[in-house]
Amino acid sequence: MQKTGQDSSRTQHLVTTYLSDVKRRVDACIFDFLPTAHKHPDVHQLYQMMLDYPRRAAKGLRPALCMLICEAFGGDPERAVNTAASLELLQNWLLIHDDIEDGSELRRGEPCLHQKHGIPMAINVGDALHCKMWELLHRNTEVLGHELAFRILSEFIQLSNQVVEGQHIELSWVNDNRWNLDEEDYLTMCVQKTAWYTCITPCRVGAIIGGASKTEIDGFVELGKEIGIAFQIQDDVLNLIGDVGRYGKEIAGDISEGKRTLVLIHLINTCTAAEARQVIDIMARPRDEKSEAEVERVLQLMQKYKSITYAQQRSKALLQEAAEQFSHNFAHLPDERAKQLFLSLIHFFVEREY
Amino acid sequence: MQKTGQDSSRTQHLVTTYLSDVKRRVDACIFDFLPTAHKHPDVHQLYQMMLDYPRRAAKGLRPALCMLICEAFGGDPERAVNTAASLELLQNWLLIHDDIEDGSELRRGEPCLHQKHGIPMAINVGDALHCKMWELLHRNTEVLGHELAFRILSEFIQLSNQVVEGQHIELSWVNDNRWNLDEEDYLTMCVQKTAWYTCITPCRVGAIIGGASKTEIDGFVELGKEIGIAFQIQDDVLNLIGDVGRYGKEIAGDISEGKRTLVLIHLINTCTAAEARQVIDIMARPRDEKSEAEVERVLQLMQKYKSITYAQQRSKALLQEAAEQFSHNFAHLPDERAKQLFLSLIHFFVEREY
Repeated sequence: MQKTGQDSSRTQHLVTTYLSDVKRRVDACIFDFLPTAHKHPDVHQLYQMMLDYPRRAAKGLRPALCMLICEAFGGDPERAVNTAASLELLQNWLLIHDDIEDGSELRRGEPCLHQKHGIPMAINVGDALHCKMWELLHRNTEVLGHELAFRILSEFIQLSNQVVEGQHIELSWVNDNRWNLDEEDYLTMCVQKTAWYTCITPCRVGAIIGGASKTEIDGFVELGKEIGIAFQIQDDVLNLIGDVGRYGKEIAGDISEGKRTLVLIHLINTCTAAEARQVIDIMARPRDEKSEAEVERVLQLMQKYKSITYAQQRSKALLQEAAEQFSHNFAHLPDERAKQLFLSLIHFFVEREY
Repeated sequence: MQKTGQDSSRTQHLVTTYLSDVKRRVDACIFDFLPTAHKHPDVHQLYQMMLDYPRRAAKGLRPALCMLICEAFGGDPERAVNTAASLELLQNWLLIHDDIEDGSELRRGEPCLHQKHGIPMAINVGDALHCKMWELLHRNTEVLGHELAFRILSEFIQLSNQVVEGQHIELSWVNDNRWNLDEEDYLTMCVQKTAWYTCITPCRVGAIIGGASKTEIDGFVELGKEIGIAFQIQDDVLNLIGDVGRYGKEIAGDISEGKRTLVLIHLINTCTAAEARQVIDIMARPRDEKSEAEVERVLQLMQKYKSITYAQQRSKALLQEAAEQFSHNFAHLPDERAKQLFLSLIHFFVEREY
């Protein structure tokens, strides 16, 4: 056990060191690229707002996956930095709009952009970063040449289509006040909204730059689904039981926002009909019409019916499945260190506590 | 006079025929490209929402400028259809977000998208169309090859940066409750927010596809500024004095929304201090705290101080300047018919009554 503890701590150290290294390189790219000053004071202010989310502490899962998979295929990760940075810009514009759409309050430990500057400006800042993402991808021509740059653009286009569809599915549930969802509904939404941009595309573009074959690239769809879902479930669990200081969002904010998570869907489909009515009644009301006691009541029921434990188990099983699939399907890849680090990285993210 | 009337009616006929022709070709491209059906009912609904604004009647100024300038340089306008259609998609996603940001009610004669489906969904539909714009531009590779397609992408990137900055300037005026603006402030904002995407870029990309030189392409910046501003001023004038049935937005909606237009800036800088205070007091209040009589009062003052006439004259002078510049700088272009039609087209758009 002593040895396992040391191994686990050494692995964690390797992962966090790797993440810091990727973050340093990707941040250098992003902050060199984004504009910082303008003589027109209003445009100058826009630039500061565009820098706000990218400057907030982020874990950098997506760029790490991209660069690591590139390396695993024997590619030079330096050639993937620009693409990895584009993934971070994607994440940032998505979050700005997502926070408005969900009526969120905190993001990475600070008030959401629309809480600071109002919805109209926040929509526009999101659009500005969205445009900057395509601009950064356009710069790939210089690093990768026209043809490869165009293939990466294709991947981002495919991903964008997925993410807006996933987002629409989730927003439809809210608009239609729909609560009779099963696990399948949740997984479909989650794959489109989260797995594509969190995992499938980061791995695919890394593989493309690393010189992977079409079959190899396509192998990341199933794998990325499993990891992406596992990651999202863990995120939803942390929202319920995490530590606000480390997690950076309000605890149980998903209950306040009325978010349909695997935990909630399990609860509604497991508790008594009367309890389900009560849960839905609380969840369906707007944030400012929910008392703390009511949010607490939903949390208690989630514990009573072991919905959180259920979700954690689902997440772990998906991770296990993904790890086995990766080890089996990508055993032939040349870079052993990168492959090992990839496995450690996905464990780290699905088992994280913040 | 009889003859001039016939000439003018013949010119108008040529312009409207040309616009219909462009619209038919561009619409064919857009509606062939945008998805229309999906087995998942929520995604299917998203697709219908994405088709909403593109299906509403639009005049098609931007695609017409693009295809006509391509032709004027001796290029095949068929090669510009895909880019012209991308300009229409740009216009549509911008309008969806703009309507939310401005709190607008009507667009092209129907309720704005966020009035029909709520702000969260409308933001996402705008994002979905935004992504589709880059996807359509990506398809230019098939028509124009990698290098030219990348040059067109560059133009759209430059334009996007301009338009979000212009939008931010205008939103800053609202957030800061700023009314002490002069004509220069207005023109700076208007060039960035409107002229680039309405005129400069449509002409530039048409010229690029038509095989223009760098100097020729850059000649469209100044020219496009003049036409773009003239167009926007006329749009603001029509908002005040137009016919709702033809114009498609609520009349004097800009007063309800508190929009800073050249007309308003002229009024505030021309009327008495007491009147200016009254105008600002009315303009600065939210839409639902303004009475019809107050909106009418601002309109009356605009008439009293001839602010609408002033704006119309500015618009006409800019148009005249642009027409002379075009005739002078582009006299050498091969296609006489396209050049003549370009001049008729810009007159038509700046002198339009709807």
